Amino acid sequence: MNTLQGQIQFINELEKLKAVKRRNLTLDNKRPENSAEHSWHLAMMVPILAPYSRTEIDQLKVINMLLVHDLGEIYAGDSWLYNESDKEEISQNELKAFKRLIECLPVDQQSELLDLFEEFETQETEEAKFAKAIDAIQPLLNHLHISHENENPDDIQASMVWKKKTFVKDYAPDLWQLVEETIDKSVQKGLYKRD
Amino acid sequence: MNTLQGQIQFINELEKLKAVKRRNLTLDNKRPENSAEHSWHLAMMVPILAPYSRTEIDQLKVINMLLVHDLGEIYAGDSWLYNESDKEEISQNELKAFKRLIECLPVDQQSELLDLFEEFETQETEEAKFAKAIDAIQPLLNHLHISHENENPDDIQASMVWKKKTFVKDYAPDLWQLVEETIDKSVQKGLYKRD
Repeated sequence: MNTLQGQIQFINELEKLKAVKRRNLTLDNKRPENSAEHSWHLAMMVPILAPYSRTEIDQLKVINMLLVHDLGEIYAGDSWLYNESDKEEISQNELKAFKRLIECLPVDQQSELLDLFEEFETQETEEAKFAKAIDAIQPLLNHLHISHENENPDDIQASMVWKKKTFVKDYAPDLWQLVEETIDKSVQKGLYKRD
Repeated sequence: MNTLQGQIQFINELEKLKAVKRRNLTLDNKRPENSAEHSWHLAMMVPILAPYSRTEIDQLKVINMLLVHDLGEIYAGDSWLYNESDKEEISQNELKAFKRLIECLPVDQQSELLDLFEEFETQETEEAKFAKAIDAIQPLLNHLHISHENENPDDIQASMVWKKKTFVKDYAPDLWQLVEETIDKSVQKGLYKRD
């Protein structure tokens, strides 16, 4: 297989992310959002919300990180935010899946993608932290915007959401009020139980 | 409405691109691909295929251009590549729709997005040309990869496809052989009529 053939194999394999279903819904027939369109939405949010990052950030890196951050799901599947068991195992499986997916690429491109994936996972750089804040905010906004009133099939409590999203206060302080208000409005809409 | 409220309104409005259906299909149940996941796929292809661009390109610009290039469809709908009538009207409608969509953003962000949209439309820069080549190649690869054998409901002839894709020879010469081979394989699979 030559270099380009491997790259085309990778591009074809990416089709599978369009079939990975998330818990969030979409406007058309309230079907489950898939991880490919979710990743597009996150990337679109970067230039719009970048003025709220606490330092100057490399937007290309943030966008590329968000475009690839769910690729491990192609073989490992999506995992639900509120599933507390096996977090470490899920993370290991996604890393393994990611490595398997990029195997057909030239070595330098494998390294670039793996670096992005690991930078997002280890959460040490400003870019990774801002990317993680964006990844936490989009599902909140989507949920408030799209879900029907009083739709809370998993009996989510507001405190569970607070706990999961509270890191935004540190990672992107200028967006924390937005997170607070979105959770409050979602409680008022009956999407999370007040506790 | 304050600045952030307008930006959140924009982010919520983006949900609608996930409901704009294209002619291409996806792997899961062969449903129509939507323009949001299509845009993600294009953006993902940029770092992978950038080594084949004829000059050094600004990847952030190409990616941002591809992320936003279909946003006009949110109000104007997707238009089919082989629909030869009203090309100018479609283009005007998409520009109008795009401007309407970004109205709720701060003025500097409106300008940034409009510049990207118009740079893609006017096709004068290397970034715009490479983006257009990517946008032409992804549906070809998707079609060959996903469609069933002999699935050609619109009676597409190979010469129609050649005519639409031939600009890749100039815009990204190193990817032209890929286009030729993909069209050939698609003819062999019965997706286009040989003529």
